[in-house]
Amino acid sequence: MLTSLQENILSGIDDKDLRVIIIAAQGPVFSSGHDLKELTSVQGRDYHTRVFRVCSEVMTLIQDLPVPVIAMVNGIATAAGCQLVASCDIAVATDKSSFATPGVNVGLFCSTPGVAIGRAVPRKVAMEMLFTGRPITAQEALLHGLVSKVVREECLEEETLAIARRICDSSRPVVALGKAAFQRQMAQARDAAYATATAVMVDNLALRDGQEGIQAFLEKRRPLWTNSTEKAHD
Amino acid sequence: MLTSLQENILSGIDDKDLRVIIIAAQGPVFSSGHDLKELTSVQGRDYHTRVFRVCSEVMTLIQDLPVPVIAMVNGIATAAGCQLVASCDIAVATDKSSFATPGVNVGLFCSTPGVAIGRAVPRKVAMEMLFTGRPITAQEALLHGLVSKVVREECLEEETLAIARRICDSSRPVVALGKAAFQRQMAQARDAAYATATAVMVDNLALRDGQEGIQAFLEKRRPLWTNSTEKAHD
Amino acid sequence: MLTSLQENILSGIDDKDLRVIIIAAQGPVFSSGHDLKELTSVQGRDYHTRVFRVCSEVMTLIQDLPVPVIAMVNGIATAAGCQLVASCDIAVATDKSSFATPGVNVGLFCSTPGVAIGRAVPRKVAMEMLFTGRPITAQEALLHGLVSKVVREECLEEETLAIARRICDSSRPVVALGKAAFQRQMAQARDAAYATATAVMVDNLALRDGQEGIQAFLEKRRPLWTNSTEKAHD
Repeated sequence: MLTSLQENILSGIDDKDLRVIIIAAQGPVFSSGHDLKELTSVQGRDYHTRVFRVCSEVMTLIQDLPVPVIAMVNGIATAAGCQLVASCDIAVATDKSSFATPGVNVGLFCSTPGVAIGRAVPRKVAMEMLFTGRPITAQEALLHGLVSKVVREECLEEETLAIARRICDSSRPVVALGKAAFQRQMAQARDAAYATATAVMVDNLALRDGQEGIQAFLEKRRPLWTNSTEKAHD
Repeated sequence: MLTSLQENILSGIDDKDLRVIIIAAQGPVFSSGHDLKELTSVQGRDYHTRVFRVCSEVMTLIQDLPVPVIAMVNGIATAAGCQLVASCDIAVATDKSSFATPGVNVGLFCSTPGVAIGRAVPRKVAMEMLFTGRPITAQEALLHGLVSKVVREECLEEETLAIARRICDSSRPVVALGKAAFQRQMAQARDAAYATATAVMVDNLALRDGQEGIQAFLEKRRPLWTNSTEKAHD
Repeated sequence: MLTSLQENILSGIDDKDLRVIIIAAQGPVFSSGHDLKELTSVQGRDYHTRVFRVCSEVMTLIQDLPVPVIAMVNGIATAAGCQLVASCDIAVATDKSSFATPGVNVGLFCSTPGVAIGRAVPRKVAMEMLFTGRPITAQEALLHGLVSKVVREECLEEETLAIARRICDSSRPVVALGKAAFQRQMAQARDAAYATATAVMVDNLALRDGQEGIQAFLEKRRPLWTNSTEKAHD
């Protein structure tokens, strides 16, 4: 499953026409994380290590892709499934969705989900989820920053696609530059972060699409993106 | 008071039967922090240094203990008392509770409380509290992540014990491993954090209780924890 | 504009009577950020670099000043204007205000605003703002920690001045010490942060105003601040 997800999100990733990825599920469960049958003593330490390494790779890959990734959630997201929601750039959820890290109840503390969730919500919210396994509602998830938007079930696809279309209206290399810069600077101290972001602003302005956007704005017309990484000037 | 709190929370800490600690107060004040009489020029610089060192030790000790610590708050928590709430893993508060860092009003800016509070709530919330000394309500504290739950006064003990019992239903070494991993990885950059958490997941699976939890889940029965740090496999 | 803002906030900064700075705007826009006409290919890379360096300097200067800075917002704050709000210590906004980072729509991703906004609100909130350019309301800004308080338009000045007056009731060197300590410790790991803050508490107690505040409290009278950096003891 993890390998197939990894292959899927990497497929055609350099295609100029790929602008956004939506991760969705069929049925009442968004994702309930690892298959516990894969985690018994029979498989052994090396296999367990491989499983969690691939899982972490998929989660960080999502954040390192050049296009935004949206989780479209309608149902339960638990353990690594909750981590997946936390790892996406944007998450739209229905009001009947819920989120939990119940590993502690089956003797396997959700430590890897805690990496993504601890960076998405306030510390005390993360810790109560991790220590008790108690699910939080979609509204609580919205309140604490785990999801970006909560909608009624019948609006889920419409709202998710509205956000996706909005992203498609932008230039791909501009979005790619911006996403990478955000991830990089957030891991730095403030002054280093500003140095990173300042250099990226200047590079962004040197892009053909950076200049086209500004020209279009000044001329009060819609921009025509090349979506290529060509430069307008050095 | 600080020394006695330190001794109390360390008492029997390695006892397999100790699973969770609840910090509560009697009367209308949860804690109003330091006794200002101890902080005049008479005691001098060395004594002041000792007071704040011990205070920081108690606050970080709470986060480094192998069991979760719950603050059960019914009333006012100010200055180092507010820091104490922020330092606990989980905090349940009554709706009449309030939280403040009023040191600035008596000429002693709440800089050490700011370490815990600045890591619990959004920066602007922390700064307004620190610069104005204005108390926030329990609802505001919940909204911003300073407490985990707000309840009516008559439900405080019941709700706190419900969370505590939920923690007691889990395996002690699993919770200990998870709490330590959460604190460690949150201080690291994302990729290092995933390396830490991945190693901990594998160690967790190697515990006897890690395997018991999974077996019980697969066999649809309640797990029987040993609560010991014994391994099931290497 | 940036240079003039920089000169303005530095003017008289060492004056003992300067206790707080309020940044406000006239008209329906708080600030819409950079003038795009300054960012075309004509000006070139070196000029662009200078513009963003000065901008980052102003934003970090606000956080490094010895007095608190309050944004008083009544209207739209976008791009670097939104960054300005995020960079202030406290922000009071009217309920008709809105906040956005719409650079992506004109081909210039708001990467430098992302430094301040990513440190003020939850990551997913920041990313949706940055990727879609969608404005958030004053209430959403309050919920997520971008502003400190939302009020009706007719109360904006009154509420902002109430906070400012509260700050003026404190001792200037105490506030200066506390603000600097908060910024410094928030960039450190927990144990280093406590070492920083502990040293600052002891220095604060050694200030004449630190001792005056405590004496006044013990004697149940109003403190009389010197507002000087004189020490009471070593």
